[in-house]
Amino acid sequence: MSHRFSLRVYYEDTDLAGIVYYANYLKFIERARSEWVRGLGIDQVALKQGAGAVFVVRRLEADYLSPARFDDQLLVETDCEATTPARIILMQRVLRDDALLFTARVILVMLDAAGRPLRLPAAIRQWSNAASAE
Amino acid sequence: MSHRFSLRVYYEDTDLAGIVYYANYLKFIERARSEWVRGLGIDQVALKQGAGAVFVVRRLEADYLSPARFDDQLLVETDCEATTPARIILMQRVLRDDALLFTARVILVMLDAAGRPLRLPAAIRQWSNAASAE
Amino acid sequence: MSHRFSLRVYYEDTDLAGIVYYANYLKFIERARSEWVRGLGIDQVALKQGAGAVFVVRRLEADYLSPARFDDQLLVETDCEATTPARIILMQRVLRDDALLFTARVILVMLDAAGRPLRLPAAIRQWSNAASAE
Amino acid sequence: MSHRFSLRVYYEDTDLAGIVYYANYLKFIERARSEWVRGLGIDQVALKQGAGAVFVVRRLEADYLSPARFDDQLLVETDCEATTPARIILMQRVLRDDALLFTARVILVMLDAAGRPLRLPAAIRQWSNAASAE
Repeated sequence: MSHRFSLRVYYEDTDLAGIVYYANYLKFIERARSEWVRGLGIDQVALKQGAGAVFVVRRLEADYLSPARFDDQLLVETDCEATTPARIILMQRVLRDDALLFTARVILVMLDAAGRPLRLPAAIRQWSNAASAE
Repeated sequence: MSHRFSLRVYYEDTDLAGIVYYANYLKFIERARSEWVRGLGIDQVALKQGAGAVFVVRRLEADYLSPARFDDQLLVETDCEATTPARIILMQRVLRDDALLFTARVILVMLDAAGRPLRLPAAIRQWSNAASAE
Repeated sequence: MSHRFSLRVYYEDTDLAGIVYYANYLKFIERARSEWVRGLGIDQVALKQGAGAVFVVRRLEADYLSPARFDDQLLVETDCEATTPARIILMQRVLRDDALLFTARVILVMLDAAGRPLRLPAAIRQWSNAASAE
Repeated sequence: MSHRFSLRVYYEDTDLAGIVYYANYLKFIERARSEWVRGLGIDQVALKQGAGAVFVVRRLEADYLSPARFDDQLLVETDCEATTPARIILMQRVLRDDALLFTARVILVMLDAAGRPLRLPAAIRQWSNAASAE
Protein backbone atom coordinates (compact mmCIF):
# COMPACT_ATOMS: atom_id res chain seq x y z
CA MET A 1 0.00 0.00 0.00
CA SER A 2 3.04 2.27 -0.32
CA HIS A 3 2.77 5.30 -2.54
CA ARG A 4 5.08 4.79 -5.49
CA PHE A 5 6.78 7.39 -7.66
CA SER A 6 9.39 6.77 -10.30
CA LEU A 7 12.03 9.12 -11.65
CA ARG A 8 15.10 9.15 -13.83
CA VAL A 9 18.54 10.39 -12.74
CA TYR A 10 19.80 13.19 -14.97
CA TYR A 11 23.10 15.07 -15.26
CA GLU A 12 21.88 17.76 -12.88
CA ASP A 13 21.60 15.15 -10.13
CA THR A 14 25.15 13.85 -10.28
CA ASP A 15 28.41 15.20 -8.93
CA LEU A 16 32.05 14.73 -9.83
CA ALA A 17 32.15 11.45 -7.89
CA GLY A 18 29.91 10.14 -10.69
CA ILE A 19 27.00 9.48 -8.36
CA VAL A 20 23.91 11.34 -7.21
CA TYR A 21 24.85 14.27 -4.98
CA TYR A 22 23.68 13.58 -1.44
CA ALA A 23 21.34 16.57 -1.17
CA ASN A 24 19.49 15.54 -4.31
CA TYR A 25 17.87 12.51 -2.68
CA LEU A 26 15.93 15.07 -0.66
CA LYS A 27 14.63 16.48 -3.93
CA PHE A 28 13.62 13.00 -5.09
CA ILE A 29 11.64 12.21 -1.94
CA GLU A 30 10.06 15.66 -1.97
CA ARG A 31 8.83 15.08 -5.54
CA ALA A 32 7.34 11.81 -4.32
CA ARG A 33 5.62 13.60 -1.43
CA SER A 34 4.19 16.17 -3.84
CA GLU A 35 2.71 13.41 -5.99
CA TRP A 36 1.44 11.54 -2.92
CA VAL A 37 -0.29 14.72 -1.70
CA ARG A 38 -1.74 15.34 -5.16
CA GLY A 39 -3.00 11.76 -5.24
CA LEU A 40 -4.89 12.43 -2.00
CA GLY A 41 -6.73 15.26 -3.72
CA ILE A 42 -4.85 18.00 -1.88
CA ASP A 43 -4.06 21.12 -3.90
CA GLN A 44 -0.86 22.62 -2.48
CA VAL A 45 -1.28 25.75 -4.59
CA ALA A 46 -4.77 26.38 -3.19
CA LEU A 47 -3.57 25.70 0.36
CA LYS A 48 -0.82 28.25 -0.02
CA GLN A 49 -3.06 30.86 -1.61
CA GLY A 50 -5.63 30.36 1.14
CA ALA A 51 -4.10 30.25 4.61
CA GLY A 52 -0.58 30.46 3.28
CA ALA A 53 -0.29 26.84 4.37
CA VAL A 54 2.82 24.93 3.38
CA PHE A 55 4.26 21.57 4.34
CA VAL A 56 7.52 21.87 6.23
CA VAL A 57 10.05 19.19 7.13
CA ARG A 58 10.87 19.33 10.83
CA ARG A 59 13.28 16.44 11.07
CA LEU A 60 14.96 14.07 8.67
CA GLU A 61 16.93 10.90 9.36
CA ALA A 62 18.57 9.64 6.20
CA ASP A 63 20.71 6.60 5.47
CA TYR A 64 22.77 6.45 2.30
CA LEU A 65 23.13 2.75 1.57
CA SER A 66 24.31 2.53 -2.02
CA PRO A 67 24.82 5.21 -4.67
CA ALA A 68 22.44 6.00 -7.53
CA ARG A 69 24.05 6.85 -10.84
CA PHE A 70 23.34 8.80 -14.01
CA ASP A 71 20.55 7.32 -16.11
CA ASP A 72 19.23 5.12 -13.29
CA GLN A 73 15.49 4.63 -13.16
CA LEU A 74 14.57 4.96 -9.50
CA LEU A 75 11.49 4.23 -7.47
CA VAL A 76 10.48 6.20 -4.38
CA GLU A 77 8.21 4.39 -1.93
CA THR A 78 6.41 6.40 0.73
CA ASP A 79 4.65 4.99 3.79
CA CYS A 80 3.15 6.39 6.95
CA GLU A 81 4.86 5.46 10.19
CA ALA A 82 2.73 7.49 12.58
CA THR A 83 0.54 10.54 12.69
CA THR A 84 -0.92 13.08 15.09
CA PRO A 85 -3.31 15.90 14.21
CA ALA A 86 -0.39 18.23 13.55
CA ARG A 87 2.38 16.00 12.26
CA ILE A 88 3.01 12.95 10.18
CA ILE A 89 6.03 10.70 10.14
CA LEU A 90 6.80 9.19 6.76
CA MET A 91 9.20 6.44 5.79
CA GLN A 92 10.58 6.96 2.32
CA ARG A 93 12.79 4.60 0.37
CA VAL A 94 14.64 5.03 -2.91
CA LEU A 95 15.18 1.82 -4.88
CA ARG A 96 16.76 0.79 -8.16
CA ASP A 97 15.04 -2.46 -9.10
CA ASP A 98 15.42 -4.56 -5.95
CA ALA A 99 18.35 -2.62 -4.53
CA LEU A 100 17.58 -0.29 -1.64
CA LEU A 101 19.75 2.82 -2.08
CA PHE A 102 18.44 5.33 0.41
CA THR A 103 15.97 5.50 3.27
CA ALA A 104 14.60 8.49 5.11
CA ARG A 105 12.35 9.02 8.07
CA VAL A 106 10.71 12.41 7.60
CA ILE A 107 8.67 14.38 10.13
CA LEU A 108 6.33 16.76 8.35
CA VAL A 109 4.15 19.55 9.71
CA MET A 110 1.99 22.19 8.08
CA LEU A 111 2.59 25.86 8.85
CA ASP A 112 0.64 28.99 8.01
CA ALA A 113 2.18 32.14 6.51
CA ALA A 114 3.23 33.30 9.98
CA GLY A 115 4.96 30.00 10.72
CA ARG A 116 2.28 28.77 13.13
CA PRO A 117 1.42 25.06 13.09
CA LEU A 118 -1.83 23.97 11.43
CA ARG A 119 -3.77 20.74 11.57
CA LEU A 120 -2.87 18.47 8.71
CA PRO A 121 -5.47 18.18 5.93
CA ALA A 122 -8.10 15.52 6.68
CA ALA A 123 -7.14 13.52 3.61
CA ILE A 124 -3.68 12.96 5.05
CA ARG A 125 -4.98 11.88 8.43
CA GLN A 126 -7.40 9.47 6.77
CA TRP A 127 -4.69 8.03 4.55
CA SER A 128 -2.42 7.43 7.52
CA ASN A 129 -5.25 5.84 9.54
CA ALA A 130 -6.09 3.55 6.64
CA ALA A 131 -2.43 2.64 6.30
CA SER A 132 -2.00 1.79 9.98
CA ALA A 133 -5.27 -0.20 10.08
CA GLU A 134 -3.99 -2.69 7.52
CA MET B 1 35.19 49.58 -13.02
CA SER B 2 33.58 46.17 -13.30
CA HIS B 3 31.77 44.81 -10.28
CA ARG B 4 33.75 41.84 -8.97
CA PHE B 5 32.52 38.87 -6.99
CA SER B 6 34.50 35.77 -6.10
CA LEU B 7 33.26 32.31 -5.30
CA ARG B 8 34.49 28.78 -4.75
CA VAL B 9 33.30 25.73 -6.72
CA TYR B 10 31.87 23.06 -4.41
CA TYR B 11 30.66 19.48 -4.93
CA GLU B 12 27.10 20.67 -5.46
CA ASP B 13 28.23 22.59 -8.56
CA THR B 14 29.85 19.71 -10.39
CA ASP B 15 28.42 16.88 -12.45
CA LEU B 16 29.62 13.43 -13.40
CA ALA B 17 31.75 14.90 -16.20
CA GLY B 18 33.87 16.31 -13.36
CA ILE B 19 33.15 19.91 -14.30
CA VAL B 20 30.66 22.57 -13.30
CA TYR B 21 27.17 21.69 -14.56
CA TYR B 22 26.16 24.16 -17.24
CA ALA B 23 23.09 25.53 -15.44
CA ASN B 24 25.16 26.39 -12.37
CA TYR B 25 27.02 29.23 -14.10
CA LEU B 26 23.63 30.98 -14.07
CA LYS B 27 23.63 30.63 -10.29
CA PHE B 28 27.13 32.08 -10.11
CA ILE B 29 26.28 35.16 -12.16
CA GLU B 30 23.02 35.64 -10.26
CA ARG B 31 24.94 35.65 -6.96
CA ALA B 32 27.18 38.32 -8.48
CA ARG B 33 24.16 40.37 -9.54
CA SER B 34 22.72 40.11 -6.03
CA GLU B 35 25.96 41.46 -4.56
CA TRP B 36 26.18 44.16 -7.23
CA VAL B 37 22.63 45.28 -6.41
CA ARG B 38 23.39 45.22 -2.69
CA GLY B 39 26.50 47.29 -3.33
CA LEU B 40 24.32 49.93 -5.00
CA GLY B 41 22.30 50.22 -1.80
CA ILE B 42 19.26 48.42 -3.20
CA ASP B 43 17.42 46.16 -0.77
CA GLN B 44 15.81 43.36 -2.78
CA VAL B 45 13.85 42.15 0.24
CA ALA B 46 12.30 45.59 0.76
CA LEU B 47 11.54 45.94 -2.96
CA LYS B 48 9.70 42.63 -2.93
CA GLN B 49 7.79 43.38 0.27
CA GLY B 50 6.78 46.79 -1.11
CA ALA B 51 5.57 46.63 -4.71
CA GLY B 52 6.34 42.94 -5.03
CA ALA B 53 9.16 44.05 -7.31
CA VAL B 54 11.63 41.44 -8.46
CA PHE B 55 14.41 41.41 -11.03
CA VAL B 56 13.68 39.05 -13.91
CA VAL B 57 15.98 37.82 -16.67
CA ARG B 58 14.37 38.32 -20.06
CA ARG B 59 17.13 37.02 -22.28
CA LEU B 60 20.46 35.33 -21.80
CA GLU B 61 23.22 34.67 -24.31
CA ALA B 62 25.87 32.45 -22.82
CA ASP B 63 29.15 31.11 -24.17
CA TYR B 64 30.85 28.21 -22.44
CA LEU B 65 34.53 28.63 -23.27
CA SER B 66 36.38 26.39 -20.85
CA PRO B 67 35.17 24.30 -17.92
CA ALA B 68 35.42 25.23 -14.26
CA ARG B 69 36.24 22.39 -11.88
CA PHE B 70 35.77 21.43 -8.25
CA ASP B 71 37.70 23.60 -5.81
CA ASP B 72 38.33 26.36 -8.38
CA GLN B 73 38.32 29.89 -7.06
CA LEU B 74 36.35 31.89 -9.62
CA LEU B 75 35.79 35.56 -10.25
CA VAL B 76 32.59 37.00 -11.73
CA GLU B 77 32.93 40.38 -13.43
CA THR B 78 29.79 42.36 -14.18
CA ASP B 79 29.56 45.39 -16.49
CA CYS B 80 26.79 47.43 -17.99
CA GLU B 81 26.44 47.26 -21.75
CA ALA B 82 23.36 49.47 -22.15
CA THR B 83 20.33 50.64 -20.24
CA THR B 84 16.86 52.08 -20.75
CA PRO B 85 14.44 53.15 -18.01
CA ALA B 86 12.97 49.66 -17.91
CA ARG B 87 15.80 47.35 -18.78
CA ILE B 88 19.51 46.90 -18.37
CA ILE B 89 21.88 44.78 -20.40
CA LEU B 90 24.76 43.32 -18.43
CA MET B 91 27.91 41.60 -19.59
CA GLN B 92 29.07 39.02 -17.09
CA ARG B 93 32.26 37.00 -17.23
CA VAL B 94 33.47 34.09 -15.12
CA LEU B 95 37.25 33.80 -14.83
CA ARG B 96 39.75 31.53 -13.10
CA ASP B 97 42.88 33.64 -12.72
CA ASP B 98 43.46 34.95 -16.25
CA ALA B 99 41.43 32.27 -18.00
CA LEU B 100 38.02 33.33 -19.28
CA LEU B 101 35.67 30.38 -18.75
CA PHE B 102 32.20 31.73 -19.41
CA THR B 103 30.56 34.90 -20.70
CA ALA B 104 26.93 35.94 -20.61
CA ARG B 105 24.95 38.85 -21.95
CA VAL B 106 21.94 39.24 -19.68
CA ILE B 107 18.87 41.39 -20.25
CA LEU B 108 17.23 42.23 -16.94
CA VAL B 109 13.92 43.90 -16.19
CA MET B 110 12.00 44.56 -13.00
CA LEU B 111 8.44 43.29 -12.63
CA ASP B 112 5.77 43.90 -10.01
CA ALA B 113 3.78 41.12 -8.34
CA ALA B 114 1.35 41.06 -11.29
CA GLY B 115 4.18 40.69 -13.78
CA ARG B 116 3.98 44.26 -15.08
CA PRO B 117 7.24 46.03 -15.95
CA LEU B 118 8.54 48.66 -13.55
CA ARG B 119 11.19 51.33 -13.97
CA LEU B 120 14.55 50.14 -12.73
CA PRO B 121 15.71 51.62 -9.40
CA ALA B 122 17.47 54.96 -9.82
CA ALA B 123 20.70 53.58 -8.36
CA ILE B 124 20.96 51.12 -11.24
CA ARG B 125 20.36 53.75 -13.89
CA GLN B 126 22.96 56.01 -12.29
CA TRP B 127 25.50 53.20 -12.09
CA SER B 128 25.01 52.35 -15.73
CA ASN B 129 25.29 56.01 -16.78
CA ALA B 130 28.46 56.39 -14.78
CA ALA B 131 29.85 53.23 -16.35
CA SER B 132 29.11 54.35 -19.91
CA ALA B 133 30.50 57.84 -19.29
CA GLU B 134 33.95 56.50 -18.49
CA MET C 1 8.44 15.66 -35.63
CA SER C 2 9.77 17.44 -32.57
CA HIS C 3 11.01 15.34 -29.73
CA ARG C 4 8.63 15.80 -26.80
CA PHE C 5 9.32 15.40 -23.10
CA SER C 6 6.98 16.29 -20.27
CA LEU C 7 7.82 17.16 -16.68
CA ARG C 8 6.24 18.50 -13.54
CA VAL C 9 7.43 21.58 -11.64
CA TYR C 10 8.30 20.76 -8.02
CA TYR C 11 9.26 22.83 -5.00
CA GLU C 12 12.95 22.42 -5.78
CA ASP C 13 12.44 24.28 -9.07
CA THR C 14 10.86 27.42 -7.65
CA ASP C 15 12.32 30.46 -5.94
CA LEU C 16 10.96 33.05 -3.55
CA ALA C 17 9.39 34.95 -6.43
CA GLY C 18 7.00 31.98 -6.63
CA ILE C 19 8.16 30.99 -10.11
CA VAL C 20 10.69 28.63 -11.61
CA TYR C 21 14.24 29.87 -10.95
CA TYR C 22 15.82 30.92 -14.21
CA ALA C 23 18.69 28.43 -14.14
CA ASN C 24 16.31 25.53 -13.74
CA TYR C 25 14.95 25.80 -17.29
CA LEU C 26 18.42 24.66 -18.32
CA LYS C 27 17.88 21.53 -16.23
CA PHE C 28 14.52 20.96 -17.90
CA ILE C 29 15.89 21.18 -21.44
CA GLU C 30 18.88 19.04 -20.50
CA ARG C 31 16.54 16.32 -19.22
CA ALA C 32 14.74 16.52 -22.58
CA ARG C 33 18.04 16.21 -24.44
CA SER C 34 18.96 13.15 -22.37
CA GLU C 35 15.67 11.48 -23.29
CA TRP C 36 16.05 12.53 -26.94
CA VAL C 37 19.52 10.98 -27.03
CA ARG C 38 18.26 7.83 -25.33
CA GLY C 39 15.44 7.63 -27.87
CA LEU C 40 18.05 7.64 -30.65
CA GLY C 41 19.61 4.54 -29.10
CA ILE C 42 22.66 6.38 -27.79
CA ASP C 43 23.96 5.21 -24.41
CA GLN C 44 25.60 8.18 -22.70
CA VAL C 45 27.01 5.97 -19.95
CA ALA C 46 28.75 3.71 -22.48
CA LEU C 47 30.04 6.73 -24.43
CA LYS C 48 31.58 8.15 -21.28
CA GLN C 49 33.09 4.84 -20.16
CA GLY C 50 34.54 4.30 -23.63
CA ALA C 51 36.23 7.42 -25.02
CA GLY C 52 35.21 9.55 -22.07
CA ALA C 53 32.85 11.23 -24.49
CA VAL C 54 30.35 13.71 -23.10
CA PHE C 55 27.97 16.20 -24.68
CA VAL C 56 28.89 19.77 -23.87
CA VAL C 57 26.91 22.98 -24.42
CA ARG C 58 29.02 25.55 -26.23
CA ARG C 59 26.50 28.34 -26.52
CA LEU C 60 23.01 29.03 -25.30
CA GLU C 61 20.58 31.76 -26.29
CA ALA C 62 17.56 31.75 -24.02
CA ASP C 63 14.40 33.85 -23.95
CA TYR C 64 12.24 33.88 -20.84
CA LEU C 65 8.77 34.71 -22.13
CA SER C 66 6.41 33.84 -19.29
CA PRO C 67 7.02 32.19 -15.92
CA ALA C 68 6.35 28.57 -15.05
CA ARG C 69 4.97 27.93 -11.57
CA PHE C 70 4.85 25.21 -8.95
CA ASP C 71 2.79 22.19 -9.97
CA ASP C 72 2.76 23.14 -13.67
CA GLN C 73 2.87 20.28 -16.12
CA LEU C 74 5.34 21.38 -18.79
CA LEU C 75 6.27 20.11 -22.21
CA VAL C 76 9.75 20.44 -23.70
CA GLU C 77 9.94 20.31 -27.51
CA THR C 78 13.31 19.75 -29.14
CA ASP C 79 14.11 20.27 -32.83
CA CYS C 80 17.23 20.37 -34.93
CA GLU C 81 18.09 23.70 -36.53
CA ALA C 82 21.35 22.72 -38.19
CA THR C 83 24.18 20.26 -37.89
CA THR C 84 27.78 19.72 -38.89
CA PRO C 85 29.87 16.60 -38.20
CA ALA C 86 31.04 18.08 -34.91
CA ARG C 87 28.17 20.20 -33.69
CA ILE C 88 24.41 20.35 -33.63
CA ILE C 89 22.19 23.33 -33.07
CA LEU C 90 18.95 22.56 -31.28
CA MET C 91 15.87 24.68 -30.76
CA GLN C 92 14.15 23.84 -27.49
CA ARG C 93 10.85 25.20 -26.25
CA VAL C 94 9.13 24.88 -22.89
CA LEU C 95 5.34 25.07 -23.04
CA ARG C 96 2.44 24.88 -20.59
CA ASP C 97 -0.53 23.78 -22.68
CA ASP C 98 -0.51 26.26 -25.58
CA ALA C 99 1.52 28.91 -23.78
CA LEU C 100 5.15 29.24 -24.84
CA LEU C 101 7.17 30.02 -21.69
CA PHE C 102 10.80 29.65 -22.68
CA THR C 103 12.85 29.10 -25.81
CA ALA C 104 16.50 28.23 -26.18
CA ARG C 105 18.87 27.81 -29.05
CA VAL C 106 21.57 25.41 -27.91
CA ILE C 107 24.86 24.60 -29.62
CA LEU C 108 26.08 21.18 -28.58
CA VAL C 109 29.38 19.43 -29.21
CA MET C 110 30.88 16.18 -28.01
CA LEU C 111 34.24 16.17 -26.24
CA ASP C 112 36.55 13.36 -25.17
CA ALA C 113 38.06 13.09 -21.69
CA ALA C 114 40.86 15.49 -22.67
CA GLY C 115 38.38 18.08 -23.91
CA ARG C 116 39.06 17.47 -27.61
CA PRO C 117 36.11 17.65 -30.01
CA LEU C 118 34.70 14.39 -31.35
CA ARG C 119 32.37 13.69 -34.25
CA LEU C 120 28.79 13.45 -33.10
CA PRO C 121 27.30 9.94 -32.98
CA ALA C 122 25.89 8.83 -36.34
CA ALA C 123 22.38 8.51 -34.89
CA ILE C 124 22.34 12.23 -34.14
CA ARG C 125 23.53 13.22 -37.60
CA GLN C 126 20.93 10.95 -39.18
CA TRP C 127 18.16 12.34 -37.00
CA SER C 128 19.07 15.88 -37.90
CA ASN C 129 19.26 15.05 -41.60
CA ALA C 130 15.87 13.40 -41.45
CA ALA C 131 14.49 16.41 -39.64
CA SER C 132 15.82 18.92 -42.15
CA ALA C 133 14.66 16.79 -45.12
CA GLU C 134 11.03 17.06 -44.05
CA MET D 1 37.20 25.41 18.59
CA SER D 2 34.43 24.82 16.05
CA HIS D 3 35.26 25.28 12.41
CA ARG D 4 33.34 28.30 11.13
CA PHE D 5 32.20 29.06 7.63
CA SER D 6 29.93 31.90 6.55
CA LEU D 7 27.72 32.15 3.49
CA ARG D 8 25.00 34.29 2.01
CA VAL D 9 21.55 33.03 0.98
CA TYR D 10 20.85 33.72 -2.71
CA TYR D 11 17.78 33.34 -4.93
CA GLU D 12 18.91 29.86 -5.99
CA ASP D 13 18.58 28.69 -2.38
CA THR D 14 14.97 29.74 -1.82
CA ASP D 15 11.68 28.19 -2.81
CA LEU D 16 8.17 29.53 -3.33
CA ALA D 17 7.54 29.42 0.41
CA GLY D 18 10.02 32.30 0.56
CA ILE D 19 12.52 30.35 2.62
CA VAL D 20 15.56 28.20 1.98
CA TYR D 21 14.56 24.90 0.34
CA TYR D 22 15.16 22.06 2.78
CA ALA D 23 17.69 20.19 0.63
CA ASN D 24 19.87 23.26 0.31
CA TYR D 25 20.99 23.18 3.94
CA LEU D 26 22.82 20.02 2.93
CA LYS D 27 24.69 22.08 0.34
CA PHE D 28 25.55 24.68 2.97
CA ILE D 29 27.00 22.16 5.42
CA GLU D 30 28.85 20.38 2.62
CA ARG D 31 30.51 23.67 1.62
CA ALA D 32 31.55 24.06 5.24
CA ARG D 33 32.99 20.54 5.30
CA SER D 34 34.95 21.28 2.12
CA GLU D 35 36.49 24.35 3.71
CA TRP D 36 37.15 22.47 6.95
CA VAL D 37 38.95 19.74 5.01
CA ARG D 38 40.93 22.33 3.06
CA GLY D 39 41.87 24.02 6.31
CA LEU D 40 43.35 20.72 7.52
CA GLY D 41 45.64 20.70 4.49
CA ILE D 42 43.75 17.92 2.72
CA ASP D 43 43.51 18.25 -1.06
CA GLN D 44 40.29 16.54 -2.16
CA VAL D 45 41.27 16.84 -5.83
CA ALA D 46 44.55 15.01 -5.22
CA LEU D 47 42.82 12.35 -3.12
CA LYS D 48 40.36 11.68 -5.91
CA GLN D 49 43.03 11.62 -8.62
CA GLY D 50 45.14 9.26 -6.55
CA ALA D 51 43.13 6.41 -5.01
CA GLY D 52 39.85 7.76 -6.32
CA ALA D 53 39.10 8.59 -2.69
CA VAL D 54 36.02 10.64 -1.93
CA PHE D 55 34.19 11.55 1.25
CA VAL D 56 30.73 10.02 1.42
CA VAL D 57 27.88 10.74 3.82
CA ARG D 58 26.57 7.50 5.33
CA ARG D 59 23.90 8.91 7.62
CA LEU D 60 22.39 12.28 8.33
CA GLU D 61 20.09 13.39 11.14
CA ALA D 62 18.82 16.88 10.53
CA ASP D 63 16.55 19.17 12.53
CA TYR D 64 14.95 22.17 10.87
CA LEU D 65 14.39 24.62 13.70
CA SER D 66 13.70 27.97 12.04
CA PRO D 67 13.80 29.03 8.39
CA ALA D 68 16.61 30.93 6.70
CA ARG D 69 15.55 33.54 4.16
CA PHE D 70 16.86 35.30 1.09
CA ASP D 71 19.79 37.61 1.78
CA ASP D 72 20.51 36.11 5.20
CA GLN D 73 24.13 35.92 6.23
CA LEU D 74 24.56 32.50 7.77
CA LEU D 75 27.27 30.81 9.79
CA VAL D 76 27.98 27.08 9.68
CA GLU D 77 29.74 25.65 12.73
CA THR D 78 31.31 22.20 12.47
CA ASP D 79 32.50 20.06 15.39
CA CYS D 80 33.64 16.50 15.87
CA GLU D 81 31.42 14.28 17.96
CA ALA D 82 33.37 11.04 17.63
CA THR D 83 35.77 9.28 15.32
CA THR D 84 37.07 5.84 14.43
CA PRO D 85 39.80 5.04 11.91
CA ALA D 86 37.20 4.75 9.15
CA ARG D 87 34.46 7.17 10.08
CA ILE D 88 33.88 10.51 11.69
CA ILE D 89 30.73 11.88 13.20
CA LEU D 90 30.30 15.62 12.83
CA MET D 91 27.85 18.01 14.44
CA GLN D 92 27.02 20.90 12.13
CA ARG D 93 24.90 23.92 12.98
CA VAL D 94 23.57 26.72 10.80
CA LEU D 95 23.05 30.02 12.59
CA ARG D 96 21.88 33.52 11.73
CA ASP D 97 23.42 35.77 14.36
CA ASP D 98 22.43 34.07 17.62
CA ALA D 99 19.51 32.13 16.19
CA LEU D 100 20.06 28.42 15.62
CA LEU D 101 18.23 27.49 12.41
CA PHE D 102 19.39 24.00 11.56
CA THR D 103 21.44 21.22 13.11
CA ALA D 104 22.77 18.05 11.56
CA ARG D 105 24.64 15.02 12.81
CA VAL D 106 26.61 13.67 9.86
CA ILE D 107 28.42 10.34 9.62
CA LEU D 108 31.18 10.55 7.03
CA VAL D 109 33.36 7.83 5.56
CA MET D 110 35.93 7.80 2.78
CA LEU D 111 35.55 5.39 -0.13
CA ASP D 112 37.87 4.46 -2.97
CA ALA D 113 36.80 4.36 -6.62
CA ALA D 114 35.38 0.86 -6.17
CA GLY D 115 33.29 1.95 -3.19
CA ARG D 116 35.50 0.23 -0.61
CA PRO D 117 36.04 1.98 2.73
CA LEU D 118 39.39 3.69 3.33
CA ARG D 119 41.01 4.96 6.50
CA LEU D 120 40.34 8.64 7.00
CA PRO D 121 43.29 10.98 6.31
CA ALA D 122 45.55 11.38 9.33
CA ALA D 123 44.86 15.12 9.51
CA ILE D 124 41.19 14.42 10.19
CA ARG D 125 41.91 11.88 12.91
CA GLN D 126 44.35 14.29 14.55
CA TRP D 127 41.85 17.14 14.40
CA SER D 128 39.15 15.03 16.00
CA ASN D 129 41.53 13.80 18.71
CA ALA D 130 42.60 17.34 19.48
CA ALA D 131 38.96 18.40 19.61
CA SER D 132 37.95 15.63 22.01
CA ALA D 133 41.00 16.20 24.24
CA GLU D 134 39.95 19.75 25.04
